[in-house]
Amino acid sequence: MDIKSFVTEKAHEAREGARSLAKASSQQKNEALVKMAAALEKNSKELIKANAKDIAFAKNKGLSKAMIDRLTLNEKRISEMSQGLREVAALPDPVGEITKMWQRPNGMSVGKMRVPIGVIGIIYESRPNVTADATSLCLKAGNAVVLRGGSEAINSNRAIVRVLRTVAKASGIHEGAITFIDTPEREAVMELLKLEGIVDLIIPRGGEGLIRAVTENSRIPVLKHYKGVCHVFVDRDADLVMAEDICFNAKVQRPGTCNAMETMLVDKKIAKSFLPQMTARFKKAGVLLKGCPDTRKIVPGIEAVKEDDFYVEYNDLVLNVRVVGDLDEAMEHIAKYSSSHSDAIVTKDYAKGMRFVREVDSSAVLINASTRLNDGFQFGLGAEIGISTDKIHARGPMGLEELTCTKFIVFGNGQLRE
Amino acid sequence: MDIKSFVTEKAHEAREGARSLAKASSQQKNEALVKMAAALEKNSKELIKANAKDIAFAKNKGLSKAMIDRLTLNEKRISEMSQGLREVAALPDPVGEITKMWQRPNGMSVGKMRVPIGVIGIIYESRPNVTADATSLCLKAGNAVVLRGGSEAINSNRAIVRVLRTVAKASGIHEGAITFIDTPEREAVMELLKLEGIVDLIIPRGGEGLIRAVTENSRIPVLKHYKGVCHVFVDRDADLVMAEDICFNAKVQRPGTCNAMETMLVDKKIAKSFLPQMTARFKKAGVLLKGCPDTRKIVPGIEAVKEDDFYVEYNDLVLNVRVVGDLDEAMEHIAKYSSSHSDAIVTKDYAKGMRFVREVDSSAVLINASTRLNDGFQFGLGAEIGISTDKIHARGPMGLEELTCTKFIVFGNGQLRE
Repeated sequence: MDIKSFVTEKAHEAREGARSLAKASSQQKNEALVKMAAALEKNSKELIKANAKDIAFAKNKGLSKAMIDRLTLNEKRISEMSQGLREVAALPDPVGEITKMWQRPNGMSVGKMRVPIGVIGIIYESRPNVTADATSLCLKAGNAVVLRGGSEAINSNRAIVRVLRTVAKASGIHEGAITFIDTPEREAVMELLKLEGIVDLIIPRGGEGLIRAVTENSRIPVLKHYKGVCHVFVDRDADLVMAEDICFNAKVQRPGTCNAMETMLVDKKIAKSFLPQMTARFKKAGVLLKGCPDTRKIVPGIEAVKEDDFYVEYNDLVLNVRVVGDLDEAMEHIAKYSSSHSDAIVTKDYAKGMRFVREVDSSAVLINASTRLNDGFQFGLGAEIGISTDKIHARGPMGLEELTCTKFIVFGNGQLRE
Repeated sequence: MDIKSFVTEKAHEAREGARSLAKASSQQKNEALVKMAAALEKNSKELIKANAKDIAFAKNKGLSKAMIDRLTLNEKRISEMSQGLREVAALPDPVGEITKMWQRPNGMSVGKMRVPIGVIGIIYESRPNVTADATSLCLKAGNAVVLRGGSEAINSNRAIVRVLRTVAKASGIHEGAITFIDTPEREAVMELLKLEGIVDLIIPRGGEGLIRAVTENSRIPVLKHYKGVCHVFVDRDADLVMAEDICFNAKVQRPGTCNAMETMLVDKKIAKSFLPQMTARFKKAGVLLKGCPDTRKIVPGIEAVKEDDFYVEYNDLVLNVRVVGDLDEAMEHIAKYSSSHSDAIVTKDYAKGMRFVREVDSSAVLINASTRLNDGFQFGLGAEIGISTDKIHARGPMGLEELTCTKFIVFGNGQLRE
């Protein structure tokens, strides 16, 4: 098989799908999504059977238990996937929204209207639920998807896509709207990334390695985050009880996520009153602590933190603790080591909170709230296709609006350029 | 000289400048811009002297009269450049604007705040006024610029940058905010385009060749338009007097611009009543017409249009004329040949106007108005750094808002992730 022409053909099919979707009404899209949800549940046996092939292969290959768990489809997970589709159907349609409109002195009205982006390539790793999640968001925003899942999930993804496409077709939407790159060849990704002008946007989801490889090889715009090295700064004017709860939540509630805290910065003025109880709570929860010299003076027996540790996303119950002189030193630390994902301050001081919000340059900057809240659902966007730490187009959780662009529209009555 | 380390060092200097600008108040930025305007006027003799070197060199090299005209600085042009700086100073500062803010059920407020992008590379051709124009817009939006003008304007650009940097420094803004790649080496552009993570955005301004070269070699996001192949469709239900004025304006008012009309599409139902008078007016204005077979039946003596002509941006008094069956055929033509820049319909029919606006996928879609109006000043954005036909981040004229990104801000009182 000639991979290049195979992928190019698929992308052209997706373009057809995008044209069909751009004209679809909200009702048509919503009905299709609700029917897709039902079809996934109805075909759950078939999906689980296809998934069993992937799991057998993964076990054979000796993949880790965690990997196999992520790969697994069962009735409960299929039902969650379907629920996700129904929730996206219930969200307002961003397409056609006129975000603003104003009158010019010559009498013409100028406005900005949200329109679909076109064709969006999603490159992702093992979890097969991404196939349905990403499709639903793209489709609702009027975009065709080109899906390229991990080769270890190829049988599951193929089965899910077959169900979704059947419903799309029956709903009067061109099947190309849901296009699947059905080959395990790695070269297929590289070819996809060259299709500037056919594919409009690439969203990679997975580990840092995957994302770097995609970004470095893509001639198409990419929206992504590499990693989440997130901070909480406990200011001298913090409510220390609140600070303890926020820091604990930020580290322990789900340490494997990108918005979990990796480094806790503590103002030296309250370090002695704050650290002993806080670190005891962390230790009780099984958190391995790495401390700066000042931290280790206050709480002996903590391992020493090395400078390199400040760059690491542990994705685990491990935490760096550093005592800083003041807000400025905390913000300097964040400017240097943060991955610009989610950074929080805990303080009762109005001016310091406002300075932190203004000066810290991250996708989400929080006062008196856990970094774990930087999330599309938590922020009320409905659902998210990922989090961007890029500065172009979208930053932070990407919901339906971020899957659109705008065009200018002009309602005139004969206006000319003078 | 090692070009790579030279350019990298310059970009790092710009990063310093960006950090300084991000903290600058609106007042500080506005005062700097107003002082820069005065300083350019005060130093006009020096600028004209530097410009004379470029002109002498250009004449020696045998550059065209049009090229030399674009290159020339005189008192009037310097005064226009200064006026541009004062106008940008008078525009509202986009930085810090909270575009929306909402309350979540758990009591936290979530908002989106406009912040600078960071470091913006501007790659442009001969007109030295771009140096001041682009700098003022980037600076006002809190971004540092890395300027790379054409080698034929290097003396002029160097002199302008010297004046601007002196004022920046005196205004307490790090000079790196205005960074100039002061070498004619082409390799410098290639090195600049590799500096992902240091430079955040590239905006190329110039001919299609320059823009393609930049886009193909850049690992940094690029915002641009390649060309403007714009259409006006005269519907059967058009006010034919209005249609004639709009088509004439769109072609003749300034044919060398990207938003000038290249192809006029005429509904067959009104072709016979519309075309004779319209084409006579075009011919009188010196427009070379190229017509489809139906056009040539109605107006004999017109040259035949070839299919390839429909892709061409003439930038000149040349126009393709095509008779189409109806709105659908017009939109099909536009979908196939348009550069997605500016496309207009002239009609009195509400439903057809709305369909055109909804379905034509261009940076500006106009009803009953000239394509020449797709422009930052005309749309009321104040000033523009260019027009984008990309779909990511910005589409259409790019003003100050398009030179920012947003971050999420959260005002909490102890919220945790459940």
